[in-house]
Amino acid sequence: MTEIKNDRFLRALRRKSVDRTPIWIMRQAGRYLPEYRVTREKAGDFLALCKNKQLCCEVALQPLERFDLDAAILFSDILTIPDALGLGLYFEAGEGPKFRKTIQNLSDVENLPKISIHNDLSYVLDAVSLIKYELNNRLPLIGFSGSPWTLAAYMIEGQGSKNFSKVKAMRYQDPMLLHLLLEKLTSCVIDYLNAQIEHGVQVVQIFDSWGGLLSHDSYFDFSLNYMNQIIKGLKIVHGDNIPIILYTKGGGQWISDIAKTNCDCIGIDWTTDIRSARQKVGNLVSIQGNLDPSVLLSDKSMIRNEVSKIIESFGPHPGHIFNLGHGITPDVKPDNVNEMIMAVHDFSYQFS
Amino acid sequence: MTEIKNDRFLRALRRKSVDRTPIWIMRQAGRYLPEYRVTREKAGDFLALCKNKQLCCEVALQPLERFDLDAAILFSDILTIPDALGLGLYFEAGEGPKFRKTIQNLSDVENLPKISIHNDLSYVLDAVSLIKYELNNRLPLIGFSGSPWTLAAYMIEGQGSKNFSKVKAMRYQDPMLLHLLLEKLTSCVIDYLNAQIEHGVQVVQIFDSWGGLLSHDSYFDFSLNYMNQIIKGLKIVHGDNIPIILYTKGGGQWISDIAKTNCDCIGIDWTTDIRSARQKVGNLVSIQGNLDPSVLLSDKSMIRNEVSKIIESFGPHPGHIFNLGHGITPDVKPDNVNEMIMAVHDFSYQFS
Repeated sequence: MTEIKNDRFLRALRRKSVDRTPIWIMRQAGRYLPEYRVTREKAGDFLALCKNKQLCCEVALQPLERFDLDAAILFSDILTIPDALGLGLYFEAGEGPKFRKTIQNLSDVENLPKISIHNDLSYVLDAVSLIKYELNNRLPLIGFSGSPWTLAAYMIEGQGSKNFSKVKAMRYQDPMLLHLLLEKLTSCVIDYLNAQIEHGVQVVQIFDSWGGLLSHDSYFDFSLNYMNQIIKGLKIVHGDNIPIILYTKGGGQWISDIAKTNCDCIGIDWTTDIRSARQKVGNLVSIQGNLDPSVLLSDKSMIRNEVSKIIESFGPHPGHIFNLGHGITPDVKPDNVNEMIMAVHDFSYQFS
Repeated sequence: MTEIKNDRFLRALRRKSVDRTPIWIMRQAGRYLPEYRVTREKAGDFLALCKNKQLCCEVALQPLERFDLDAAILFSDILTIPDALGLGLYFEAGEGPKFRKTIQNLSDVENLPKISIHNDLSYVLDAVSLIKYELNNRLPLIGFSGSPWTLAAYMIEGQGSKNFSKVKAMRYQDPMLLHLLLEKLTSCVIDYLNAQIEHGVQVVQIFDSWGGLLSHDSYFDFSLNYMNQIIKGLKIVHGDNIPIILYTKGGGQWISDIAKTNCDCIGIDWTTDIRSARQKVGNLVSIQGNLDPSVLLSDKSMIRNEVSKIIESFGPHPGHIFNLGHGITPDVKPDNVNEMIMAVHDFSYQFS
């Protein structure tokens, strides 16, 4: 593997010592940046932006121009796989993602086409290659996918939802149908992430945005189980060369079990105490997180205070990657983001 | 205290032995019952129903006529206090609660009127008296209130919300203002619950529906702290005569700490493993919960299976009250509710 100029993030993912805690931000290329809004305007809509490799590359690099971050992340959407499967992803202004078709029964699942990542999602792989080229090994590049459960939730519901009641109902009304869908999606996600890795991503994150809606037992059977299969599907090809981050929003109660999957790092949301998270997982995995994104709506002194609490709580141990507990929101001022990053630098140097 | 004919619920709240696990259902008087929909139609709208003691009593008793439940609960709304404080609660068809006025700044908080529960919320107390009279000591009657944090969340947001971003922003932008509001609400909730107790409720539950949105530290400072004050405010008057249940949706990570508040029982949602919950709290408090409400959308065999898993997981220990992990949803068939109740009876008799 080529030498990466800034390898703090990769070292922290392997629980190696670092000069200071690395930081990146979920949704770091996003609407809170004025330059992002300009590029998105140029693209037309969000999906057009995702499908244009030049513009994807442009927005992926924007936060790195502005801020002293320790990782780049592919710019794309978590729902590209269902779109490639023919569900017709679209975005309406001010609303979340929607699908023109949804999955309701066995024939819907059986009729999902067999896709080829290299053909049907070539636009994502092209974006990976271009971002990787432009990064020129300055920083590591993260690839990602939605978890099978999270993809299924959107595919059955047809859009975001407060309670995802349709997919929750299917889990109990027809669990075997849901498993069939999850198996198909798992196979797609493995191929998708392997293809991203072939094109140059050096780390992958699986976003299990809706795992926290499941009951304790159902989380293991319907979400973690499939993420575990993905990890096996990646590790069998790449060994430990490509660190894998699992992020389950609302999964704080399950981190001891998530740590047993052979993932390399667990992303935690802001409801989890990072000190006890570290104690629970020991040196088995790294921990990524977990500032409440709402903190960035306040002022510099509050931001510094809340950052310092997280750095102190994690303590002088290897294996912390600073991040928000969820994606950054569009109403955040970029100056406040910079303050957070500076605070992470300042407070974590003491442990170096 | 007068003898209650069915005291299973009260015994379980005190970790005493019972012949079988008691059960009641959050939102048991609700839209899933056709007879409820008839009464609500008669009342006009939901708030008119809450303000009519005869109709409140009618709907509170409806589930008890149909099902073999072990507790009755006052029929009311969690937002009666903000309504009495002048915010103008209203409900639009198919939507959640809304307020005509919201709390945005210091003068909004300072200008909240001093209310008298006996005058301004007399309709709730009248409903308590009437339900209590009609129950004729057949079953214990539960009173309730929203938690200060949950009331504040609605008062600041003006309605339900996916992320409650306004109140989350205020928590970091102006924490002292939020504390001032929470203090006022805490005093109201103490008076409100004490008045319900004077009028005959034998148990109270505090619904902290939105505590799970807070970061670990913020939950303690902005939600649990105030619930703790309420517990003190009730125990100082009633000692241990009136058991107190705290229910924080999304609070599974914090139950060891919730158990230290001197509450009598912790309500847990469906994401928490009830076996480990019991292990964490030991014999300090009872546990109420925690079937995923979505299970009731499936069939009888799935319902029996999921009920048996919860009963077995809790095991043959005193101090379990069966309930859903959240309120029952309008799309549930009453027959399925009956199946759940029968299953609780059947599976828990083995431990008697």
